[in-house]
Amino acid sequence: MRPDDANVAGNVHGGTILKMIEEAGAIISTRHCNSQNGERCVAALARVERTDFLSPMCIGEVAHVSAEITYTSKHSVEVQVNVMSENILTGTKKLTNKATLWYVPLSLKNVDKVLEVPPVVYSRQEQEEEGRKRYEAQKLERMETKWRNGDIVQPVLNPEPNTVSYSQSSLIHLVGPSDCTLHGFVHGGVTMKLMDEVAGIVAARHCKTNIVTASVDAINFHDKIRKGCVITISGRMTFTSNKSMEIEVLVDADPVVDNSQKRYRAASAFFTYVSLSQEGKSLPVPQLVPETEDEKKRFEEGKGRYLQMKAKRQGRAEPQP
Amino acid sequence: MRPDDANVAGNVHGGTILKMIEEAGAIISTRHCNSQNGERCVAALARVERTDFLSPMCIGEVAHVSAEITYTSKHSVEVQVNVMSENILTGTKKLTNKATLWYVPLSLKNVDKVLEVPPVVYSRQEQEEEGRKRYEAQKLERMETKWRNGDIVQPVLNPEPNTVSYSQSSLIHLVGPSDCTLHGFVHGGVTMKLMDEVAGIVAARHCKTNIVTASVDAINFHDKIRKGCVITISGRMTFTSNKSMEIEVLVDADPVVDNSQKRYRAASAFFTYVSLSQEGKSLPVPQLVPETEDEKKRFEEGKGRYLQMKAKRQGRAEPQP
Amino acid sequence: MRPDDANVAGNVHGGTILKMIEEAGAIISTRHCNSQNGERCVAALARVERTDFLSPMCIGEVAHVSAEITYTSKHSVEVQVNVMSENILTGTKKLTNKATLWYVPLSLKNVDKVLEVPPVVYSRQEQEEEGRKRYEAQKLERMETKWRNGDIVQPVLNPEPNTVSYSQSSLIHLVGPSDCTLHGFVHGGVTMKLMDEVAGIVAARHCKTNIVTASVDAINFHDKIRKGCVITISGRMTFTSNKSMEIEVLVDADPVVDNSQKRYRAASAFFTYVSLSQEGKSLPVPQLVPETEDEKKRFEEGKGRYLQMKAKRQGRAEPQP
Repeated sequence: MRPDDANVAGNVHGGTILKMIEEAGAIISTRHCNSQNGERCVAALARVERTDFLSPMCIGEVAHVSAEITYTSKHSVEVQVNVMSENILTGTKKLTNKATLWYVPLSLKNVDKVLEVPPVVYSRQEQEEEGRKRYEAQKLERMETKWRNGDIVQPVLNPEPNTVSYSQSSLIHLVGPSDCTLHGFVHGGVTMKLMDEVAGIVAARHCKTNIVTASVDAINFHDKIRKGCVITISGRMTFTSNKSMEIEVLVDADPVVDNSQKRYRAASAFFTYVSLSQEGKSLPVPQLVPETEDEKKRFEEGKGRYLQMKAKRQGRAEPQP
Repeated sequence: MRPDDANVAGNVHGGTILKMIEEAGAIISTRHCNSQNGERCVAALARVERTDFLSPMCIGEVAHVSAEITYTSKHSVEVQVNVMSENILTGTKKLTNKATLWYVPLSLKNVDKVLEVPPVVYSRQEQEEEGRKRYEAQKLERMETKWRNGDIVQPVLNPEPNTVSYSQSSLIHLVGPSDCTLHGFVHGGVTMKLMDEVAGIVAARHCKTNIVTASVDAINFHDKIRKGCVITISGRMTFTSNKSMEIEVLVDADPVVDNSQKRYRAASAFFTYVSLSQEGKSLPVPQLVPETEDEKKRFEEGKGRYLQMKAKRQGRAEPQP
Repeated sequence: MRPDDANVAGNVHGGTILKMIEEAGAIISTRHCNSQNGERCVAALARVERTDFLSPMCIGEVAHVSAEITYTSKHSVEVQVNVMSENILTGTKKLTNKATLWYVPLSLKNVDKVLEVPPVVYSRQEQEEEGRKRYEAQKLERMETKWRNGDIVQPVLNPEPNTVSYSQSSLIHLVGPSDCTLHGFVHGGVTMKLMDEVAGIVAARHCKTNIVTASVDAINFHDKIRKGCVITISGRMTFTSNKSMEIEVLVDADPVVDNSQKRYRAASAFFTYVSLSQEGKSLPVPQLVPETEDEKKRFEEGKGRYLQMKAKRQGRAEPQP
C-alpha cells in the first residue's frame, strides 16, 4: 500500500480495497468462463453484496487478496473474495474484508451478448443449493433496485453546516484507457473507487475529521459504462447515527461523443463512514439536519437500514464497526 | 506518451503537456534559487503566461521538454519552456508548445515566507531590460485579475443544448501525496492538468466531437493549495467563434479538515478548444446560446479577447490555431 | 521522485529506477532501428545485464537518465544507460546506476518478425570488437538460462521464521493498456518494476527492516507478454550472506482468454537486497534456513554467485554494496 492509496492519516481508502477485490474477481471469473472451448468472453461485474471493512489497512502494509468461485448459474458466476492486511515488519495479519461479487460473461465479439457459464464443481452437495438461494435473493433485489432511481443532487447557495446541501459533492470523470478492460468498458472496481472517493469527501465535509469507510451496501451495476463516456458521481448524506454516517452515491454515464445515446444511471449504493480521532478511536458525528421533504424521507429510510443492520449484527453477536 | 496521456482519438491532453512544462519549470527554478548558500527553498508557481498549442502530440511520441531561466527579479524567476514532439519511428520533430512561467521561492522552514532570488547572468544587456518590462506587465495583470472573482457555476435542471448550463461541469479532487511537493502544497502542474480536464469535458459536451486544447490564457495562482484540501474545479463555456470555444475554469480550495480556514479561489483561467474531424481537420462549432445577463456579458468579454488575439496574430503573421 | 516511487523510509524503489532505465533504452533503440528508410519497427527488451545500485535515490530528488548505443549486431542493439540523482536543494549529484540493455527490433506489421538493425558508427575501432565479445557472451548465457526453468513457488502452512517458505511471496497482475507499448506487448520496464516489488516484499518479510535493492542479476526476457495476459510474479529467498539477501524472481504469463496458448515463463532474475538502519547504515541479515533438498541446492548456487561477484569486485577494487 502506497501513499496515494491512503488518506492523510495513513488509512487506506476503502475504494482502493474495493478496486483490488474486483480485479481479483474479474480475473478468476474470466478465467473460469473461458475454461471450456467455446466463444471467448470477458466477465463483467453485475453486483457486489454488502460488505464491511473489519479493520483498517495502512501505508506500507501488504494486502493479500484471495478469490474463489462459490456458485455458478447459467449466466452468472458468484465469487467470494477475502482481503488480509499484513504488516511485514511485525508479521501481524488481519482480516480486512470479505466480499461476494456476481459476474456475467460477455462475448468478446459482441459485448452485448451474454454467454453461458461452465458449471463449477462443488465439494459438498449442499453448496449448490445454498448458492442457488443466494442467487435468487440477489436477483430479486437487483430487479427492485433497478427502479429505485434517486434524482440528481442539486446544489444550493450558501448552505448551513450539517445540512445535506452543505456536504453534498459531485465529481466528473472522463473515462480513460486505464479505467477500462481491453474490450472497452469500465472495470467495476474503478467505478467503486470513484464512488468511495465522493462518499469520503461528503463525509469529511460533514464532520471535518479523519474519516474511514465502515461498510458498503450492495452495489448493482445496471449497465456497462463504455470508453469515451463522462461519468458523474454524486454523493449526499442521507442519515447519521451517533457514530456513523450513511452517504448515497449515484453514478450516471454520459456518452459525450455519441449523440444517439442518452445519459443513464449506471450504479448506485450507500456507503457508511465513521469518524476517527488521531488515536484511531471512533468519534461522535455531528447530527445531519434534513431540510426538505425528500431529505426527511431519505433520513427515515437510512435509519431503517441502520436499525436492521444493527439487529442483524447483534443477532450474529458480531462486533460493530 | 501513453494511452492514459491522451483522449480516445490519440491526441495527448493539453493538461498532460502543461504538467510536464510546470515540472521542468519547478526543477530549474528550485535549483537556481538554491544555488547560493542561504536558506533552502522550493519554487512555487505564481503565473503561466498565455500559451498556444502549436501542433498536436500523439500516443507513442516522445516529448522533449527544455527549460531556461530568462529573468529574475528580487523575489521571482521567469522560466521559458519549450516542448518538442518526436516521432521515433519517422524521426519527425515538431515544436508543440512555448511557455513562460513565473516562480516564487518559498522558505522550506516556513512556506509562507518568500526568499530572495540569486540574480541570473544575462548574455546580452538588453535581456535584463526586456525581462523587467515583462515582469512589470505581468505584475500589473496579476493584481487586476486577483479581484476578477467569477461566481461559482450553478447547475440548471434539464438545460437546452448549446446553452451554458448544458455543458457546464465540475470536478472535486481530494489532494493526495503524489499531487504535492515534499513541502505539502500542490504542484501547479497538477492543478493545470485538472483544469484542462474539466475544460475538455465542457468542450466535448458542447460539440460532441473530438476536441483538443488550442491555447490557454494566462493563469494566475492566487494562493497555495495545501495537502488535505478538497479542490473544486468548475468549467463553463463563455464564448464560441466559428471554429473555437472559450471555457472559463475556476479552482476553489476547501480545507475540509481545518475548520479555521474558509474556502478560497486558488486559480482561474480561460482555455480555448477546437473541434477536430476524424481526419484531424478543424470543424465548425455549434454556436453558444447565452441566456442570462451574466452569460451575455461573459460572451461579449470572450469575444473581445478573441478579436484582440486574432489582431495580435495577424500583426505577427502567425498561423491561427 | 514522488512519494509513490519510494518506500516508507523515502528510498526510491530499485524497480522505479529500472523502469526509467528501460524507458530510455526503448526510446533510443527504437529511434536507431527506424533511422533508415525501411520497415517500421519497435524495439523489444531482450536482456538487461547485471547492474548495481551504487547509491540510494530519495523522494524529491531529480533523476537524470542518459542512454547511448554502444554496439549493434545484425538483429540486436546494445544500450548503455547511466542514472544520476540530483538534490536540487543542495546541488549534490551522484551516480546511482549504470546498466547495459539489449533490444531486438520487431516489425510493426508483424511483431513476431525480427528486423535488421542499421549498423552504429564507432568512434574507436576497438569498440566494435569489444562489443562483439559482449554480444557473444550474453548470447551464450541467454541460451543456457532459457532452460533453467525454476519451478513455481508453492505455499506452505505455518512456516517457521527465516525459512524460504516464510518469506516467499507472489503477485498477480492483469496487464492493462498503460503497461503496454502501442503494439500490444508489455514494456520490459513494467515487468522489472513488478519483479523488484515482489523481491522487496520477500526481503522485508525476512528481515523486518528497511530494505533496498543492491543489485540485479542479468534478466533475460524469454518471450513477449501480450495485452490481456495475467502475469504471476513469484519471489523466494535463495541465499543470505552476512549483510545481503539474494531473491529469485520468476515471471509467468497466462493468456486467460486464449485457451490455445499455455502459461509460459516470460522472465526470471536474482535480486540482491541489503537491510538498512534508520541512519542508512547496512545491518546484519538473519540467516536463511534452507529446508528441502532443492532449497539447499539453490542456497549453494547463490553462495557461488555471491563469492564469484565478491572476487570480481575485489579484483576491480570497487566498493562492495
